Amino acid sequence: MAHALEIAGRGPRGVNPQVGAVILSPDGGVIAEGWHRGAGTAHAEVDALSHLTRAQTRGATAVVTLEPCNHHGRTGPCAQALIDAGVARVVYAVGDPGDASSGGAERLREAGVDVEAGVLAADADALLHDWLTVQRLGRPHVTVKWAQSLDGRAAAADGTSRWITGPAARADVHRRRAQADAIVVGTGTLLADDPALTARRPDGTLYETQPAPVVLGDRAIPDDALVLRHPRTVLHRSGANLFGEHGDDVSASVLAELRERGVQRVFVEGGPTIASAFVRAGLADEVLAYIAPTLIGYGADGTDRPALRGLGVETIDAQVRLEIVELERLGDDLLVVARPRIADEKEH
Amino acid sequence: MAHALEIAGRGPRGVNPQVGAVILSPDGGVIAEGWHRGAGTAHAEVDALSHLTRAQTRGATAVVTLEPCNHHGRTGPCAQALIDAGVARVVYAVGDPGDASSGGAERLREAGVDVEAGVLAADADALLHDWLTVQRLGRPHVTVKWAQSLDGRAAAADGTSRWITGPAARADVHRRRAQADAIVVGTGTLLADDPALTARRPDGTLYETQPAPVVLGDRAIPDDALVLRHPRTVLHRSGANLFGEHGDDVSASVLAELRERGVQRVFVEGGPTIASAFVRAGLADEVLAYIAPTLIGYGADGTDRPALRGLGVETIDAQVRLEIVELERLGDDLLVVARPRIADEKEH
Repeated sequence: MAHALEIAGRGPRGVNPQVGAVILSPDGGVIAEGWHRGAGTAHAEVDALSHLTRAQTRGATAVVTLEPCNHHGRTGPCAQALIDAGVARVVYAVGDPGDASSGGAERLREAGVDVEAGVLAADADALLHDWLTVQRLGRPHVTVKWAQSLDGRAAAADGTSRWITGPAARADVHRRRAQADAIVVGTGTLLADDPALTARRPDGTLYETQPAPVVLGDRAIPDDALVLRHPRTVLHRSGANLFGEHGDDVSASVLAELRERGVQRVFVEGGPTIASAFVRAGLADEVLAYIAPTLIGYGADGTDRPALRGLGVETIDAQVRLEIVELERLGDDLLVVARPRIADEKEH
Repeated sequence: MAHALEIAGRGPRGVNPQVGAVILSPDGGVIAEGWHRGAGTAHAEVDALSHLTRAQTRGATAVVTLEPCNHHGRTGPCAQALIDAGVARVVYAVGDPGDASSGGAERLREAGVDVEAGVLAADADALLHDWLTVQRLGRPHVTVKWAQSLDGRAAAADGTSRWITGPAARADVHRRRAQADAIVVGTGTLLADDPALTARRPDGTLYETQPAPVVLGDRAIPDDALVLRHPRTVLHRSGANLFGEHGDDVSASVLAELRERGVQRVFVEGGPTIASAFVRAGLADEVLAYIAPTLIGYGADGTDRPALRGLGVETIDAQVRLEIVELERLGDDLLVVARPRIADEKEH
């Protein structure tokens, strides 16, 4: 199984899970291996079986990192392929959470195949964590990040904001960007800050993995925008499908499209309109508030630039309750990582 | 000196420092002690000397917690009293920081008295910490406290705010209230929340020491306001001397009056107008931000209730820079304790 997990990791992150399979002869020797190379290609079990004759597979054991699927997608059900191959035993790590694809283990057992589940399940869970999250949520996982003063402002009255937080906080942002598949900003932030949207080390070099830049909003991306030099192609989505009539409801369509493109983790960097829209829509699975120990307040003419805008909260009982899962001091600044809390009455 | 410090603590906190004095005979035995009982009464040295004849004081050693004063206030200079008594040696813990009252040690030395300074200075500093702070600042020490959501709001759009923070945070507030000499709120908070402004233990009982309640603002205190049942008399100050023309400049006159009344530590509890006024005026020596892990944003009609309002910051370089000196998790909430930072350019 450890070997199956290792070869699973050779496949790409994407719409489909990373899966590895190893076929053992009845005497326990490895006779074939396979892994899934992405949507539309053979599943790991089928890939492994393809290297063998029926004589070799009869009575063999298949070790697979994910429960063999039970549905006809672009490929046939792997459970049936294993049955057809005459495999005597199937060992897998984690169950398939899909409504359509699960049931493979049951099908195998009904066909008289000996099935064992849960071997190295924790390791397989770790490898598949983001993919499993997508299956659970029905969309990519969303992290919403903003930087603010202690009193919740993203900028001073005149719009200036560079830099509220210090270098340690910014380095942390880049490190976390590199762990995301896509990074989302609004055209407002794009036009105001001209961000490169790359994930860079403190020395300015790029991390190996870069999130795909996604720009939301009706305004055009200027020809000289730094984001157009991003190593990955910019996805620009505009139009009424993005926001509701109040201008702050993110349509789920963007996340649905990103999921189809194989995005498992989305890093929403704002600014305030975009961040608020995701929070308001209940689409923030994790928030990162980088808090600088400064106070800004609002301007003499009342101009206020809060880090978050309208969230659909009109009365205190409707406030968006979170729980703090991580608290870090980054140089002079703080990072508060919080996740939605299951609704409960706060003790009074 | 340890005994002198102990008896110093018998005197009251107030305009004058808590000072103790012990007179030793030439052979080292304690022959008298004295302490200062508050403004207008004898200083500790004079109190101690008053128990003795000239024959007893001649050649004696005076052990005093604070450098003997050198000025004519409501009492004569203690340095001269010690010289007149024929004291041979004076030992003291900390120097007198006052412009008018210092110089006592020099006067004693000039008169041929043997002077030793700095004995148990750290203990005396601790005892006199708040009084020394008042001398250094020229006004009482000010702590400004507020509770906010993670995104900086003090209340939801409809004005509801109870409770943003939880019981552990509220218990911490009461504990800190008990360490202050005065607690300041605006009439807005008074009318909205009807706070008792007492310092209470979690079981509802009062702490032994209670801050004097101070209410700022032009509106009247309702006859049934809870604050009128406070064990200490309410000080209500209104009028143009409180706030500047923009409604957010605290006049130093309130702090000056509180100093005259012997207040060394002021706890400003707000709400937003009062808290912002003290921050804006540069009069916040310490801020306590109790942060609940919730998000509020603003209402659909744009009604926003931030914990801080106008601070006179129009551009980012003018933001009020603090440094975090304490970070505590209180139940689900956070407490950030911060103090003004010496102006310096943040590293970019």
